[in-house]
Amino acid sequence: MRIVVLAGGIGGARFLRGLKKAVQGTGVTDITVIGNTGDDIHLFGLKVCPDLDTVMYTLGDGIDEEQGWGRSQETFHVKEELAAYGVGPGWFGLGDRDFATHIVRTQMLSAGYPLSAVTEALCERWQPGVRLIPMSDDRIETHVAITVPEGEPGAGERKAVHFQEYWVRLRASVDAHAVVPVGADRAKPAPGVLDALASADVVLFPPSNPVVSIGTILAVPGIREAIADAGVPVVGLSPIVGDAPVRGMADKVLTAVGVETTAAAVAEHYGSGLLDGWLVDTVDEGSVARVEAAGIRCRAVPLLMTDIDATARMAREALALAEEVRA
Amino acid sequence: MRIVVLAGGIGGARFLRGLKKAVQGTGVTDITVIGNTGDDIHLFGLKVCPDLDTVMYTLGDGIDEEQGWGRSQETFHVKEELAAYGVGPGWFGLGDRDFATHIVRTQMLSAGYPLSAVTEALCERWQPGVRLIPMSDDRIETHVAITVPEGEPGAGERKAVHFQEYWVRLRASVDAHAVVPVGADRAKPAPGVLDALASADVVLFPPSNPVVSIGTILAVPGIREAIADAGVPVVGLSPIVGDAPVRGMADKVLTAVGVETTAAAVAEHYGSGLLDGWLVDTVDEGSVARVEAAGIRCRAVPLLMTDIDATARMAREALALAEEVRA
Repeated sequence: MRIVVLAGGIGGARFLRGLKKAVQGTGVTDITVIGNTGDDIHLFGLKVCPDLDTVMYTLGDGIDEEQGWGRSQETFHVKEELAAYGVGPGWFGLGDRDFATHIVRTQMLSAGYPLSAVTEALCERWQPGVRLIPMSDDRIETHVAITVPEGEPGAGERKAVHFQEYWVRLRASVDAHAVVPVGADRAKPAPGVLDALASADVVLFPPSNPVVSIGTILAVPGIREAIADAGVPVVGLSPIVGDAPVRGMADKVLTAVGVETTAAAVAEHYGSGLLDGWLVDTVDEGSVARVEAAGIRCRAVPLLMTDIDATARMAREALALAEEVRA
Repeated sequence: MRIVVLAGGIGGARFLRGLKKAVQGTGVTDITVIGNTGDDIHLFGLKVCPDLDTVMYTLGDGIDEEQGWGRSQETFHVKEELAAYGVGPGWFGLGDRDFATHIVRTQMLSAGYPLSAVTEALCERWQPGVRLIPMSDDRIETHVAITVPEGEPGAGERKAVHFQEYWVRLRASVDAHAVVPVGADRAKPAPGVLDALASADVVLFPPSNPVVSIGTILAVPGIREAIADAGVPVVGLSPIVGDAPVRGMADKVLTAVGVETTAAAVAEHYGSGLLDGWLVDTVDEGSVARVEAAGIRCRAVPLLMTDIDATARMAREALALAEEVRA
């Protein structure tokens, strides 16, 4: 059995760790991960791919476990020095070990390798145990239309900022009016993405951000269609538990795209044209009927990724729901 | 009084520290340093300028004192990670704090700033107390023709390697047949270099490598002529003491250009057309007559830069010799 997973950063990476454990000895031949690159950013002349790296570091045992992103045993001397040179931004936390990844990536990109080839090369070291492919080799950057907060130049005016500026610098604390994956309309899926979907037996949406992670992947022309055309079960896990994001600030960007922050509304947002099955947390059992009414098979199971075993149980539930849909 | 100094790395930087101390309260209005860039190298997609940085870090109190190059309180996590990715070369020791300098420099160069403007910007932070100008904004790389050592592919054949490969990886342990500042013939002095020389009252050659440091600076068309045309005293300090380099491996590159490793031979190599005065160490007092016979005024004084005070005394001797020449 071949599984394709669409993944953002922390939530996607942790789910994948559970999925790997869940499928041990089950005859799953491979897991292909289509990674979000909409949150990629150029910093200090280097190409930084936070979501790809979070998946790679998490599955390769190099992640800062507590934080969920960045490298374990990290130091911040490069960042300190950049600040001493007055070179910003200072709000993005790049550690010394992490810098090495961006240096290698940037050097390979400058030499002409596409991001998919670079990612494969980086994974040679990390051995994540999955095939990690960026959603596209083309540059796509998620921008967020905000109202400039009080105390900043142009306060009260609307402007577009890079997703990372909205997410990391502003902590999603200002109104977001729109979320736009700039460049997505002209982008092509990276080599391997459509083939993986065409030969998939199951497609999973982990509890990643439905707007800026999975939504951005689905915005690359051809990917949504390839999932629908695959004719295999597509099952997702709600990132919203008890009407709030399990982590992160998904509520802010859901509001920006006019979706309420509930497990059921997110399922409806994906829609029955895309989604066959949906897992909600047991606290959201009351929303099962609403999701099923939308034509999406739904089960309520514990959805907190408190440890790898709990996460593996979630992954097994998702795969069981997929088999139920298939039958 | 305006002093212009041609400087390589460690020897030049340490001499400059002594010179700064020597001229305190003497009416010297400025010291301009023309820095060697022939040992610059591109590593990991970043532009590294070892000699400029050694001068900047030494005069800005950021140097690793013991080593003489690189940053104090340095860590090597980026380098460790690059090695884990299999990305080399591993023989060049870039620390985390040092990496930040190369990242800022590379970003500014990519944005279109010339190296001289970048160096000025970096010095804004370090406040070296001198004006540091690279010899040229054009790319010049010193290459060394060597015989490939036993045990390496092509052993016994001749090939050209980057100076840093010869110096750092091979520790100058193989025969060097020629030293070529590639690109120097088409290079122009950086903005400010010729003006500084034209308005100089004294030009000093610190005890830097006469071939790959000062020799490379002199290879930039226009610089040697500007020194001669300035019509002011030009005084050098011998880097050779007791027929051996005080530090480094200057003997190897002197042999490559057909110059014996003696204080007198180096003076003759510069020649009386360029050099007016020459300081040799007291142990080389016997060579004073030979240097003076070559038309270069010569004095024997202690030339070991054991500490800043000793170095300041050397600088005072050089300035005194310049005044003697002028009179």
